[in-house]
Amino acid sequence: MRRDSGAGNIFADLNPDPAAEHVEDLLSLPGVRIERIVSCGQASPPDFWYDQPQGEWVLLLDGAAGLQFEGEKAPRQLQRGDYLWIAPHRRHRVAWTATDRTTIWLALHIDEAQP
Amino acid sequence: MRRDSGAGNIFADLNPDPAAEHVEDLLSLPGVRIERIVSCGQASPPDFWYDQPQGEWVLLLDGAAGLQFEGEKAPRQLQRGDYLWIAPHRRHRVAWTATDRTTIWLALHIDEAQP
Repeated sequence: MRRDSGAGNIFADLNPDPAAEHVEDLLSLPGVRIERIVSCGQASPPDFWYDQPQGEWVLLLDGAAGLQFEGEKAPRQLQRGDYLWIAPHRRHRVAWTATDRTTIWLALHIDEAQP
Repeated sequence: MRRDSGAGNIFADLNPDPAAEHVEDLLSLPGVRIERIVSCGQASPPDFWYDQPQGEWVLLLDGAAGLQFEGEKAPRQLQRGDYLWIAPHRRHRVAWTATDRTTIWLALHIDEAQP
């Protein structure tokens, strides 16, 4: 799906939902997908690790979260404006997101160009 | 240039500069480049139009700006959180950016996959 008309406001229609994380594609092109994720206290299931073939660039637009990389002692504490790069197959999980406010992530999923 | 270590805060070290717009690569991969642009009243030169072979996804993180597309009567007014997609070769210019505060853009330059 591609949205050439894809204009909007990333803080609109958040509808924070304690029951579930909400993920929305803002743009999807060959090789690149841009997502907005709205969290409301959610975390990855215990012992669950993401292991993704794509790289992911994450920017925390609001709220707070803990992102755990496998092999690191403690989750990285993410605040508003923090960004980081998750290389393909770098195992990670969301340890926690704020329960007292809405957390908004921008996530870019990027396919590595094949040699 | 690729920054695997590329973690930071997008609101840090803004150094707003009325003399010049500041552009910084946050991540550069084959086919995708992520930029932070800090504006302080700058606009495109009169009668200058960007005409880029890459598509560009723009998110206004703070401040305010007017983005003019060729063929549209008036610039789009961008506020905090507004995003839009600029298709390859869609001619556009920055009509204005706020003079009373700092404007921060996130810009993703995306090469179209060749068929």
